Amino acid sequence: MLDTDLTRLLHIRFPIIQAPMAGGPTTPTLVAAVSNAGGLGSLGAAYLAPEHLRSEIHKIRQLTDRPFGVNLFVPENPKESKETISKMTNYLNKYRTKLGISHNPSILKYQEEFQDQVQVILEEKIPVFSFTFGIPSQSLLEEMKSRKIVVIGTATTVDEARLLEQAGVDAIVAQGSESGGHRGTFLKDSSHSLIGTMALVPQIVDQASIPVIASGGIMDGRGLVSSLVLGAAAVQMGTAFLACPESGAHRVYKQKVLLEHEDATEVTRAYSGKDARGIRTTFMNEMQHFPSTIPAFPIQNAMTKDIRQAAAKANNSEYMSLWAGQGLRLATDHPAETIVQLTVDQARKILKEIASMNTFSKE
Amino acid sequence: MLDTDLTRLLHIRFPIIQAPMAGGPTTPTLVAAVSNAGGLGSLGAAYLAPEHLRSEIHKIRQLTDRPFGVNLFVPENPKESKETISKMTNYLNKYRTKLGISHNPSILKYQEEFQDQVQVILEEKIPVFSFTFGIPSQSLLEEMKSRKIVVIGTATTVDEARLLEQAGVDAIVAQGSESGGHRGTFLKDSSHSLIGTMALVPQIVDQASIPVIASGGIMDGRGLVSSLVLGAAAVQMGTAFLACPESGAHRVYKQKVLLEHEDATEVTRAYSGKDARGIRTTFMNEMQHFPSTIPAFPIQNAMTKDIRQAAAKANNSEYMSLWAGQGLRLATDHPAETIVQLTVDQARKILKEIASMNTFSKE
Repeated sequence: MLDTDLTRLLHIRFPIIQAPMAGGPTTPTLVAAVSNAGGLGSLGAAYLAPEHLRSEIHKIRQLTDRPFGVNLFVPENPKESKETISKMTNYLNKYRTKLGISHNPSILKYQEEFQDQVQVILEEKIPVFSFTFGIPSQSLLEEMKSRKIVVIGTATTVDEARLLEQAGVDAIVAQGSESGGHRGTFLKDSSHSLIGTMALVPQIVDQASIPVIASGGIMDGRGLVSSLVLGAAAVQMGTAFLACPESGAHRVYKQKVLLEHEDATEVTRAYSGKDARGIRTTFMNEMQHFPSTIPAFPIQNAMTKDIRQAAAKANNSEYMSLWAGQGLRLATDHPAETIVQLTVDQARKILKEIASMNTFSKE
Repeated sequence: MLDTDLTRLLHIRFPIIQAPMAGGPTTPTLVAAVSNAGGLGSLGAAYLAPEHLRSEIHKIRQLTDRPFGVNLFVPENPKESKETISKMTNYLNKYRTKLGISHNPSILKYQEEFQDQVQVILEEKIPVFSFTFGIPSQSLLEEMKSRKIVVIGTATTVDEARLLEQAGVDAIVAQGSESGGHRGTFLKDSSHSLIGTMALVPQIVDQASIPVIASGGIMDGRGLVSSLVLGAAAVQMGTAFLACPESGAHRVYKQKVLLEHEDATEVTRAYSGKDARGIRTTFMNEMQHFPSTIPAFPIQNAMTKDIRQAAAKANNSEYMSLWAGQGLRLATDHPAETIVQLTVDQARKILKEIASMNTFSKE
């Protein structure tokens, strides 16, 4: 059961994908450690400039010859009025004052150029490309396929999974509501697409004819076997790796992950303009009272960047984005390899226990 | 694995508890059918007057000699100002006009007397008592125990589970965010206690030394085995039974359950004053724009009762409460016995498949 269609397709030993957590946690060291341990490490590259992305890929390749993945955000180009932008700028200035930084941050661009990032991925012929927030163009997906790059999309509902399969992806991440970080929702309102993993996975599995990767609240061997039983071909685990030594998450962020509980997170668009699950902070709480419209992603994300960076520099977690899922009590600071190994060991133990029982044969 | 500590304690064959869905669905016929099939049927008795509760118990006993459960809501006695009540009354009158009913509903009481309901349960010595929304008094729990009634509480967080165990319950329902109907949250804000089943169950299991019953999004044998793998001793399934012939849910409610999808539900306090998950309706959508405070449970529940009843009479699902979980695509209209049997058969098949594989012994 640990050997699935997907592990064969991805050429990995264990059906464990380390989630691509953009913005710092997924260092080349973490990605390579997970891949070396038999899972699939993934680089969350959405915020990386193309040349930085290339150098991170090179670093990963220096550390492992196993397959790994790179994740990008399919770009959105929302327009916001000057008034909306200016109201938010003014509102955010109280945080700039608090953190002692300039009221005039220079925002050179809202996001990296997706086409340029993609170009690096194609040139580097990375083994696995995953994306979030929609579906890239058909021509891009065909280009990926022609280079034998395995392509993975992200769905938060059955309808999204269907569109991804129609577009020709090789596998689908079913992102349950428990999961940390940005919601991958690209149809409907994302508040309508917070489906728990236990409910989401079997409903997508029933409608999809390609492998489904369960994500959201999966923290150990119990979550792994449980997901496989629901019909998933693998799991994607993010929060489980957040506090490991190889993770690039800030020290105070890791401390929060290790200390906080299952009820500490909330879905917010305060930091980035797009719904994402993170540990509750003063910034999130206060932004609930923001009297106007929060600019859409990636504008708000770019607008809060200087604040998040200054807060990190000051070790002040209350103004940092602390993306995390609902499995927090199960997070550990073990090395990534140990996390993979303990997960596999526990999964094998569970499978062995089941196999040694014969209650299923009753009657 | 289908034979657990809890099945032995409850004297049931299969670790399947039919959720006590107050307000109509859990007829004596449904409760008895599930118990006769080897699960534990449960009567959602919160809204039943004591003598009605007694007659329902008698009906169940005429239909089965197997164990069954009765669920009550631990009472809350909120106060609301005359102004709050009057604003809501005025707002609701537009629905009364639409449905052609009197603007002066007679609300004799907000809820049934818990003590009187409990008295019936004690006198009838029912096999299993479960409760939601808090913890009854220590003396009541001791009284139950002295009469050998198995007592089950409901938790939506680890802290709630701990309090229930300290209070001396025999088992805990871990209510994941996927589940339909009222949230059992009794500590903190219930919006902070929407933890997905995949994340909630193992975290409660790790902290509890009594059996844990997984609930939320569990619809079939996959959900059952998956929950047992997470460490649960049984599952509680509600939505799976909602549209079965024995369910007392209204015909149009059943139709909605069979037609709607995983993303059709939302958590609302529009109907009852307390957070509950149901299929989205016009009433829920419009109440989001109600400009004042929604009276707390059970006041709002009593205040909307005439509207819900008139809507049911008119077969108008847009003003009925359609409590349901996120597993909607997996709901069927099979008889209750078939649902139990198919769940068990599928669970056994999965367990057998696992046992026949030997990939876990690799290395």
